[in-house]
Amino acid sequence: MSTRSELARVELLRARFASTAGAEAVTVGIGDDAAVLSVAGDGELVWTVDAQVDGTHFRTDWVSWADVGWRSFMAAASDLAAMGARPVAALSSLILAAEVDDGALEALAAGQAEAAAELRAPIVGGNLARGRETSITTTLVGRARTPVLRSGARPGDGLWLAGPLGLARAGLALVAKPGGVAALEEGAAACVQAWRRPIARLRDGQELPGRASACIDVSDGLARDAWQLAVASGVMLVLEEAALLAAGGAALSSGARALGLTPLELALVGGEDYALLAASPVPLSGFVRVGRVEEHTGGGRLFTATALGVVPLEPRGFDHFA
Amino acid sequence: MSTRSELARVELLRARFASTAGAEAVTVGIGDDAAVLSVAGDGELVWTVDAQVDGTHFRTDWVSWADVGWRSFMAAASDLAAMGARPVAALSSLILAAEVDDGALEALAAGQAEAAAELRAPIVGGNLARGRETSITTTLVGRARTPVLRSGARPGDGLWLAGPLGLARAGLALVAKPGGVAALEEGAAACVQAWRRPIARLRDGQELPGRASACIDVSDGLARDAWQLAVASGVMLVLEEAALLAAGGAALSSGARALGLTPLELALVGGEDYALLAASPVPLSGFVRVGRVEEHTGGGRLFTATALGVVPLEPRGFDHFA
Repeated sequence: MSTRSELARVELLRARFASTAGAEAVTVGIGDDAAVLSVAGDGELVWTVDAQVDGTHFRTDWVSWADVGWRSFMAAASDLAAMGARPVAALSSLILAAEVDDGALEALAAGQAEAAAELRAPIVGGNLARGRETSITTTLVGRARTPVLRSGARPGDGLWLAGPLGLARAGLALVAKPGGVAALEEGAAACVQAWRRPIARLRDGQELPGRASACIDVSDGLARDAWQLAVASGVMLVLEEAALLAAGGAALSSGARALGLTPLELALVGGEDYALLAASPVPLSGFVRVGRVEEHTGGGRLFTATALGVVPLEPRGFDHFA
Repeated sequence: MSTRSELARVELLRARFASTAGAEAVTVGIGDDAAVLSVAGDGELVWTVDAQVDGTHFRTDWVSWADVGWRSFMAAASDLAAMGARPVAALSSLILAAEVDDGALEALAAGQAEAAAELRAPIVGGNLARGRETSITTTLVGRARTPVLRSGARPGDGLWLAGPLGLARAGLALVAKPGGVAALEEGAAACVQAWRRPIARLRDGQELPGRASACIDVSDGLARDAWQLAVASGVMLVLEEAALLAAGGAALSSGARALGLTPLELALVGGEDYALLAASPVPLSGFVRVGRVEEHTGGGRLFTATALGVVPLEPRGFDHFA
């Protein structure tokens, strides 16, 4: 196990992230006090930050350092997708525990660089610090002509979904299960892949501006994130069971079986797929309709429409401090 | 000890940071997937991130949570000062261990908000996560018509300093000393204050564009940071002892006595004062001259000129992985 000095590690990262550079907007990249971007022209700046913490969001006996780097980058970029923004650039702030030797750091940075290249979001700077617990904090700047907020959903809109439902949650349970992935049944490999290598849906996000009235990315569980959109918009949302199950397909059923849940339960509690949930009066290319927006009459914010009727839902999902 | 849910904690932060808002540029603040800024017009975007980690950068038995919040914000903002930028807005990403109860979080956020108000850099969003180790990661966006880099110093320039030298390092040693601050000698209180409540020198930074050829903020120790500027610019730097001691004044001498160092040693190894070190062919208002830029002839990057002659220096200072 070898660990270079801080300056040598900055050089390692500069070399690794160089392949992600080349965006016109980047005037100064890694190596100065701050990065410099040229963002002249129309449109608003959309800006987000996300952290992934060892022991909270991942465990390195479940996942490779390269996967950790990829996941952390995609989780942050997903917020830009939900706003209908295109990424301009990213900064990576790493807190590294002693067990992250140079090889682990190389792999982590390679995963970040791979995700950054996939999304055309160059990593132009960051920070390095030592800690007892490793975390990866990624901040991204993007542009959007008309950012799409959580707060614009209106009664009469449809609810539209792009991306998988519940797969990552099932994948996490599978990689965390003693015995690992050798015992997977059919379809479960897709769940593991969904957790290890999620994709921020930036292309789908480009469908939103000018069409969708509101959007949120599904990171903490569909029920929880839909509830947040409902509260922000002052509306009631009805998720339609049949449409959700059709959207989830065989992979959702397979994942649910592995977890001992019904497919609907898994669809509602699953997060980290980084699907997009949008409200829109018109169809959105690449999205499927999974529900509707209704007026909020005081009887709750979120419902599922099942064969047995319309059932109120709690905002279940992941809460860091619950 | 009470800890609210994640959503309630987001509300706590939204309320606490509301007082920092009001900048024209902020279109969407806390509560959506991302913040939205309007940055039309001239100038480049300057963007930085910095993390402060419990046990690495501070210990909560040495410093209040409010001070931790203040220090973390100022440390990040200092990078903007060194580029000659004005802040537009900030995001705060918190990883909170179980011991950070709601009272501690309130105090931490109050310190961040106080610093943000001082610098007119509203906190417009962020992230909350749970961890075993607390850290505060702050990212700031600023604007600068002509950002000042580390790489522009030229032979013949003077070296100019704005801000204290070595005080924070002495202050840290004093707060960490068993017996605490009761035993302080004269001048040492200023050292403790320098460590607890550093100030990012944004106003001094506004002197740089169009005048200075290069700048760096002194966060890891003057010798280390000056060495980085020398390498980036491809020049040799000579720090002049008499000028450094005059710049440090009585507080530097007092701090050095408390640490058992000479004032010059303390000036060279001290960081976290967030002074600015600039190279400039012309005087800079608010700065004092502390040395000169010479051609690099292969004989080293950094020297001090003392009464005994010109002595080569190593890039000593804080290294996270040394």
